[in-house]
Amino acid sequence: MAIKVPIQLPQQPSRDYDITIGSLPKIVIDGKAAIVTNPKVSGLHLKRLLEAISAKELHIVTIPDGENYKTMETIEWMLDRFFDHRLDRKSTLIAFGGGVIGDMTGFAASIFQRGIDFIQVPTTLLSQVDASVGGKTGINNRFGKNLVGAFHQPRAVYIDTHWLKTLPEREFAAGVAEIIKMAVMFDAPFFEWLESHDLHDDENLKEAIARSVTLKARVVNEDEKEKGVRAVLNYGHTFAHVIENFSGYGTLLHGEAVAIGMVMANALAIEYGLFDEEEAERVRRLLERYNLPTEYRIEDADTFYEQFFLDKKSHDNQITFIVPEKIGKWHMLVDPERERVVKVLKRWQKKGEDRDQ
Amino acid sequence: MAIKVPIQLPQQPSRDYDITIGSLPKIVIDGKAAIVTNPKVSGLHLKRLLEAISAKELHIVTIPDGENYKTMETIEWMLDRFFDHRLDRKSTLIAFGGGVIGDMTGFAASIFQRGIDFIQVPTTLLSQVDASVGGKTGINNRFGKNLVGAFHQPRAVYIDTHWLKTLPEREFAAGVAEIIKMAVMFDAPFFEWLESHDLHDDENLKEAIARSVTLKARVVNEDEKEKGVRAVLNYGHTFAHVIENFSGYGTLLHGEAVAIGMVMANALAIEYGLFDEEEAERVRRLLERYNLPTEYRIEDADTFYEQFFLDKKSHDNQITFIVPEKIGKWHMLVDPERERVVKVLKRWQKKGEDRDQ
Repeated sequence: MAIKVPIQLPQQPSRDYDITIGSLPKIVIDGKAAIVTNPKVSGLHLKRLLEAISAKELHIVTIPDGENYKTMETIEWMLDRFFDHRLDRKSTLIAFGGGVIGDMTGFAASIFQRGIDFIQVPTTLLSQVDASVGGKTGINNRFGKNLVGAFHQPRAVYIDTHWLKTLPEREFAAGVAEIIKMAVMFDAPFFEWLESHDLHDDENLKEAIARSVTLKARVVNEDEKEKGVRAVLNYGHTFAHVIENFSGYGTLLHGEAVAIGMVMANALAIEYGLFDEEEAERVRRLLERYNLPTEYRIEDADTFYEQFFLDKKSHDNQITFIVPEKIGKWHMLVDPERERVVKVLKRWQKKGEDRDQ
Repeated sequence: MAIKVPIQLPQQPSRDYDITIGSLPKIVIDGKAAIVTNPKVSGLHLKRLLEAISAKELHIVTIPDGENYKTMETIEWMLDRFFDHRLDRKSTLIAFGGGVIGDMTGFAASIFQRGIDFIQVPTTLLSQVDASVGGKTGINNRFGKNLVGAFHQPRAVYIDTHWLKTLPEREFAAGVAEIIKMAVMFDAPFFEWLESHDLHDDENLKEAIARSVTLKARVVNEDEKEKGVRAVLNYGHTFAHVIENFSGYGTLLHGEAVAIGMVMANALAIEYGLFDEEEAERVRRLLERYNLPTEYRIEDADTFYEQFFLDKKSHDNQITFIVPEKIGKWHMLVDPERERVVKVLKRWQKKGEDRDQ
């Protein structure tokens, strides 16, 4: 069974597209095309993708795997290959890999001859639920992550759970964390459904992906250029960024840091009397069902707090935390008092110390 | 007297902006801003611009002058400076210079933190009439000119003829060539007006700029992403690109090559019985009034013809020439016979030989 989620772009109606969730269909491309992928995905899955695509000319551009190569240097190398292959304004790029491949292929597509079409074939659960909606593309530089890029919408997204068979369980769970995040923020019935359905079942997984991308599409539509409600997608992320800074990227997966971050955000919401302990416990239990981490040792709560202000998203020394009011309903906690945030953070400091004794 | 030309963008109505033609008004910027300029423009005119701008913080980023520096390397260097100055998503860039500065600042604005605002203050006549409408931004690479870039619309364009006082007469005339091009393609009354008004008079010049950008805006609106009628703006350019390739960039100014190209396109139109000798003569006379070149020596007409197909804009070995049907009315001459095009080109070959005897 294939599910189609239509993505409408009110600000650019001519760029509306579909996300198709199900076994990869035949993809027919009018002009020339280039698949951008990495050696790992290519080794495991390229043959199956090639069987699905028909194009006038099809090239394969392989870039190294990993966040470290998400640079302008790699983008320039990719563009050179496209010119070598004589791609033109009518050509199409196909992003075949996880979030890094999607971000870079989308960015390259946005600037090659002032913008050409691209198609996403995401191969990790995280990129399937997260990166396939929103049009964000970009690269890192020495000042931070995703600081250079463009908003460029794909022409189509094909989500096939087949690729996930070779995905390590930890990476699978990291994708589930983003699905749980969407349910907690926007959709109580979906959260209840998640409590009673195992996402290791393929039909359940497809339904969860469809519901998750539908929710994200609704948010992004209301706020294509990220000025308001799109910030709600940062639930758990404000904490996660600091956790990732302290742990070093690569120790925890992003989705794992987000899982911890959600638990912290929930605790902050409880501190402010906004959220209920019992509901917080349900969120924690659901995360733990997928072996996502919910514990973390904070070295020093004050230092941790300071780190919030080094993040590019905080202007004017104000900080907004996205927290749940109840499951399925978000709340923006604008500029809470430092001492109360630190008080909440200290529980992780203490917890860590307790555990060590 | 200031003239305002509203630019409407049907595909992105929230990005509508005004072109203001007249003495530079006060420009008030809410957040931080950076002026991007080159040493020449900066030395002559920066003081006057600084007097007009008020911003929360104002930085100046100076890049080397000239087409040779229109590269991704310079873009990266610019982005680094913006991060050094801690510009954020609410910051504004101000392009202060000619076409190269405008193209690069617009491109940098389009990819800095996935797109920030920019304002154009063009200081050459060519960039005032040509680069200030259309949203084209970009850089060159070893494969050609403007092959990497984005469509990114400015928030405002301020055209002040004051800057032109220091512009060499040849560069002034190169800008006039683009104005004449617009009149020949789209507006017979404007052409007649140009025949009877000297653009060295400042009020006339402002009116001509306003009429020219209004015409260009109309074309671009119909065709924001360059699939159809926008090609008409290439009148004279198909020949000009080949002339520039043979002469080496920098020998002839772009507008000068376009002037020769228009005369060649007119001759081709006459060959096909589309255009009238007398009207072609009026176009030539108007160009010559500004000392624009209309003569050129073609070494070998066949070799010249071959060069049309090396241009990125020709797909599938077909070529379309934009020619006038009459003054004020364009025509697309699709895929004319090689022998008739070469026959027309031979007149320049012969003319050159005649002159040498």
